[in-house]
Amino acid sequence: MQMTKVKPHVKPTKTIAIRGRKLGSESPLICSPLVARTAQQLLAEGRAVLAKRPDVVEWRVDYFQGIADTAAVVKAGRSLRKLLSGRPLIFTCRSAREGGQPTNLDSGAVARLYDAVGAEGLVDFVDFEMGNASSIVSKVVDTAHQHDTRVILSYHNFKRTPGTKTLVGKFMKADRMGADVAKVAVMPENRLDVLALLAATAQADAGTRIPLISMSMGPLGAVTRMVGGVFGSALSFAVGKGSSAPGQLPIADLRSVYEIIERTHRA
Amino acid sequence: MQMTKVKPHVKPTKTIAIRGRKLGSESPLICSPLVARTAQQLLAEGRAVLAKRPDVVEWRVDYFQGIADTAAVVKAGRSLRKLLSGRPLIFTCRSAREGGQPTNLDSGAVARLYDAVGAEGLVDFVDFEMGNASSIVSKVVDTAHQHDTRVILSYHNFKRTPGTKTLVGKFMKADRMGADVAKVAVMPENRLDVLALLAATAQADAGTRIPLISMSMGPLGAVTRMVGGVFGSALSFAVGKGSSAPGQLPIADLRSVYEIIERTHRA
Repeated sequence: MQMTKVKPHVKPTKTIAIRGRKLGSESPLICSPLVARTAQQLLAEGRAVLAKRPDVVEWRVDYFQGIADTAAVVKAGRSLRKLLSGRPLIFTCRSAREGGQPTNLDSGAVARLYDAVGAEGLVDFVDFEMGNASSIVSKVVDTAHQHDTRVILSYHNFKRTPGTKTLVGKFMKADRMGADVAKVAVMPENRLDVLALLAATAQADAGTRIPLISMSMGPLGAVTRMVGGVFGSALSFAVGKGSSAPGQLPIADLRSVYEIIERTHRA
Repeated sequence: MQMTKVKPHVKPTKTIAIRGRKLGSESPLICSPLVARTAQQLLAEGRAVLAKRPDVVEWRVDYFQGIADTAAVVKAGRSLRKLLSGRPLIFTCRSAREGGQPTNLDSGAVARLYDAVGAEGLVDFVDFEMGNASSIVSKVVDTAHQHDTRVILSYHNFKRTPGTKTLVGKFMKADRMGADVAKVAVMPENRLDVLALLAATAQADAGTRIPLISMSMGPLGAVTRMVGGVFGSALSFAVGKGSSAPGQLPIADLRSVYEIIERTHRA
């Protein structure tokens, strides 16, 4: 019944066209995180990152000191939106439990912040953890869709890599909960964990209706940021100015690798 | 008892130091094949390839028109050895059954050719298929070791990718048969086949005493040539002038990717 609330142009698709970019097309998009603490630093970081031409920008608002002041977040978001011009923007308050900075916001407060920012039409995606209470996840999905904003439902594990079956289940769960994009980021303890993440991505890609984003973190997993596209990951996070997770490469390096992979596919 | 024939410095090791290069160290070596048809073309190709600074060169003698004339092969080999100076050289007559050019040599004749070239001290490695009769494989191994030449025992499948367990078995078989290096090259039919090859490499690397070389072929498998080192492959073939198998990248591209991967490991 919730599906009736969803507008036709935000119904699940394997490829999402947004501001001239395509999430889910052959080569993954490159997304740079912004991890500034103040509004002024946010714009400075945004300018520095834009100079390196990422496809997408993610504002990691959990790093933002004024996060508890919704008006301050909206104001900074307006300036950022203007600065980014046509660049797609992901808005993310990553919980401390899943690798974010500690904030005083509980999941309900994060949902309300997403609603406020979405209502202003400032962002293209919000990222919310699928591990939150399902009632809150449903609310975030519905509210975002009412604002024409897409939802990334995500799962992070900074300690280890669950088995392939569990990982596939995470992607499927996001799809089932109404996500427009499913994201899984896990820490490998050995080489086979890295391959388990890639195998889960390939398997889930065959069974879901939406684009997937996945990565194995840290130095050992860094290769998944490079070759994940071949196995069904639609986006990779790369360092513009600051890193938001272990193993992220500089944008220029990641772009070089993508160009080389594209040449092998044309060969 | 055969082990008593093997000289101490060619006993199986995880890392093989040869002419200043290390096979089995952290970053894979880059090897370029020579696929010339005549002695003159071989030297021209050798010069062109050397300009791109591969770590290792492979002479694919199955492409060589004079292959049935052992004296002609030895003569061309002497000129090539001189040209390569300190560069390690792999000498390979790939059988048509495993993706090589058709020749009139049976496996016994190939073994005799390897003996003749090895006796001249012209090459550092010979590559022989582990699928040959075990008596001939043993003979090639023993003879090569008597000449201080290392042996790569290889398995190729240009049609499909056997299961992980079978692939691990190929690496183990080469180790058991006295190889100094085990090589497995297979064709993927889907994404999971690519991951099966990498998983088999990682698993075998934990259970063998020798360096491994592996790749998934074709455009889909090309990423294994880039990231195989992370999963235990010690060498990758790259195009200097001519390609010898589908999916090989240009040397410069492969080197760029290795430099980027090395930076992620130092990060």
